[in-house]
Parts: sequence; C-alpha cells; structure tokens
Amino acid sequence: MEKPKVRLFVDQPLGAGQAVALGPEAANYLFNVMRLGKGAGVALFNGRDGEWRAEVAEAGKRQGIAVCQDRTAPQVMPPDLWLIFAPVKKERTAFIVEKAVELGVARLMPVATRHMNSERWRVDKQTAHAVEAAEQCGATFVPEVADLQPLDRVLAAWPGERALYWADETLAQGAATPSGFVTGPAAILIGPEGGFSEDEKARLRALPFVRPLALGPRILRAETAALAAVVLWQDAVGDWRG
Amino acid sequence: MEKPKVRLFVDQPLGAGQAVALGPEAANYLFNVMRLGKGAGVALFNGRDGEWRAEVAEAGKRQGIAVCQDRTAPQVMPPDLWLIFAPVKKERTAFIVEKAVELGVARLMPVATRHMNSERWRVDKQTAHAVEAAEQCGATFVPEVADLQPLDRVLAAWPGERALYWADETLAQGAATPSGFVTGPAAILIGPEGGFSEDEKARLRALPFVRPLALGPRILRAETAALAAVVLWQDAVGDWRG
Repeated sequence: MEKPKVRLFVDQPLGAGQAVALGPEAANYLFNVMRLGKGAGVALFNGRDGEWRAEVAEAGKRQGIAVCQDRTAPQVMPPDLWLIFAPVKKERTAFIVEKAVELGVARLMPVATRHMNSERWRVDKQTAHAVEAAEQCGATFVPEVADLQPLDRVLAAWPGERALYWADETLAQGAATPSGFVTGPAAILIGPEGGFSEDEKARLRALPFVRPLALGPRILRAETAALAAVVLWQDAVGDWRG
Repeated sequence: MEKPKVRLFVDQPLGAGQAVALGPEAANYLFNVMRLGKGAGVALFNGRDGEWRAEVAEAGKRQGIAVCQDRTAPQVMPPDLWLIFAPVKKERTAFIVEKAVELGVARLMPVATRHMNSERWRVDKQTAHAVEAAEQCGATFVPEVADLQPLDRVLAAWPGERALYWADETLAQGAATPSGFVTGPAAILIGPEGGFSEDEKARLRALPFVRPLALGPRILRAETAALAAVVLWQDAVGDWRG
C-alpha cells in the first residue's frame, strides 16, 4: 500500500471504518490542488487518535468524505514543555511556531513584555501555522496555542512545580554557570529582541522556580534562542533522549 | 561613552589610530539611512582583529573615513565546525546561513546530492548574508562560505581526523543509539528535504569517520536539523560548554 502523499489534520474522531467529513478547504486542497480522486489514500490525524490511513469515498468540489482504514502511527504527545516568548516580527514569529512543533513543544504562550517588538498575535492564525507544521513533520499532535498575556500575569499564576528556564542573555559571556535541566513539567522563557527590562529581570531572578539558561557566547536572536533552548531541553530531559 | 548603534564588517586592518575607508554601501548606510555624522561612533570588525570602536572622521555622500579608537571586544573565532548541507528553498537556505553564524560555525559547505531541492548557491550572496548575521549577533568572525560541490567529491577528499556527524533521519524512530560527540575538528552533514539516496546512505554508512546523529522522534526539516545538530554539538564539545 503506497504511502499517502497528503497528510491532514482534522478535528474529528478517527477510528477503523470511521467516516470523516472533508470541508471546503480540505476538499479544495485534496481534489483541486493535489488532484486526488475517489479511492485515493490520505493520512489523517486529529491530535488524539494517532495517524490513520483513510480512503477518499466521495470527492466533491466543496466537500468530500474519507473513510479510515488502518492506524499508521500511534498517538504521541510531546513532552510537557511550554514555550513562552514575546512575539517578534511576523516571519520570525511564524518560524518560532513552526520549529516548536517540529522540535516538540506542548504549549505556545506568547507574553507581553516591556520591550516587546510586536503585539501582533492571533490565536487562529498561529494555530493554523502550528497545524501546517504538524502536517509536514509527521507529528500526531498540535501544540496548544494560548492568547497573548502580560508576563507579570503569567508569572503571578505560575504553577510552582513547573521549572521555568530563562534564556538569560546576560549569561552570554559565560559569567554564570547555569543550572542543569531537571525532569518534570517545564517551560522555556525567551525575551524580546530588546531584552527584558531591569524590573522584569529583577522579578525573574527572585522567583524560586526560575532557572537561568546559558546559550553560548554569542547574542542569539529571539527565535534562535527559543529553538536552541528547546533542543537542549529535549536532548537532556525530553523525548530526544536515546 | 555610548555604545555605537551601528556594527559593521570591514575587510581592512583594524588597530589603534587606524583609518578605515568607508565605501559607497557603508557610507549610504551610515550617513543616509542611519543619519550618522562626523564624530559619531561605529563598531567595526574584520574577522581578524576583534571589534573596535571607531569615530567617523569624514562623512561624504559616497564615501567616508572612520578612525579606530579602542578595541571593544577580542577576536573570537568559532570552534572548528563545518556545516555541510544541500541547499533548500531560498528563505530556508538564508535561514541556515544566518543561524549558523549566530550559533557559531567556522565553514559553510553546500553540497549537491541526488535528491537535492535547489542548486542555487551564490558565494557572494551567501557571504553577504553571513556578514549581515555577524553584524547583528555580535560575532567578530564571518564563517568561510564555500562553493557548491558534489557530496561524493567532498567525501572523497575528506580529512580523516575530522569527525562527520550525519543527521540520519532513519534514526528518527529511535532505531539506533547514536554515538556521542568527540572533541576535535568536526562537521555536521544534513541531507536534502528528500533525504539521501540509497547509494549515498550506503556510502556514508561505510565511511570510518562518519558518526550517525539522532535528532529526536519527529522528522525535522533540513534547516531545523542543521540548527539542532549545531546546538547539540556546541553544547557538548563546542564553545557553549559551561
């Protein structure tokens, strides 16, 4: 059986024999753009039931139906890692979202900070980016995409058992030895391009669950820091461990 | 003394009292775009002499002169790491170059592979990207940018003492335990989006200096794999070590 060329996220139950309704967007993509027809195979996932090979049973202009046949991959959730960051320029924010899915992040949490570069954050658009990234990279999950919140509020409501790794650019010169990673729920916090304000830094330093994280001797852009921190965490205590 | 707002790479000697000629591009950027004038400070680096604070001595429409005053950062070369990759789409290749500079790579080596996505590689343009990234991230070096070469030829001329870490996507399912990183000269090899051909894989597996590298359970895009591999190498044996 050939591997389906198309992999789609659908927000519907998947299971053996389950019929899945394909809406206008999916139908356009499958039947017009990709020129698939009745009988063609398509890979479906919904973030809960793993990945299924489904067969197109109806292919209309604005809708269609696919019927699930075999489960081709188990449901695999990412480790319990949140990525907290100040939105940057449009393309670089899109990049953070895309890479967070590939690298395996459970929740994307944009925060408003004093020196932030952009307040642009639309949950629907960023969720669409995350879905697209998941379709491409073979993930069976889509990270939760949160609304933009002030950093202060996020810190005030922090669940104490969750470690918060703060990629602190003042460590870039090797001035401090960062703490190592610990297992368990975690979050990575990346500042805006302008850095955190002195107030924000003082607050972060005083919080017991905050652990500074050094990311080498050069100043990284926000999106690079986000990605590098996730890679190091995944390798040390996440699902990249051999 | 205020920190200069502009940081420029110049291919000229830098040292105390040294006058540096500013060509049309630099003059336009400094004096028109950034509206700097005589007496303004500018940070200069050339990849050899560290970073210098210079003062604008002449500000013309098409040229200018800056005179070096104090060295503001020592020359720091990146570790001896080559990044070998098949060029991908334009924006994603630009991304690899930019991130390689931030993360610290000594040499960028594009290779032609069987299933490559693009043969587009211009040394002058990619060097300009690398320079821009170095100016932004505070690096005092610019990686060497090589010409596109066939992978076969690169492997045939391989310096045996240099470890070649191959980000092998067939390890993505955890099928094999990758070898660890070793100190010393190294290179990271990332395949094209379509993966290496069976021939290429067989050849890589047979080479004594090739070490497979696993990058987690999900399939990463080429540029994500490149970045993740550099981060892991830097953290384990490069200049990110605490």
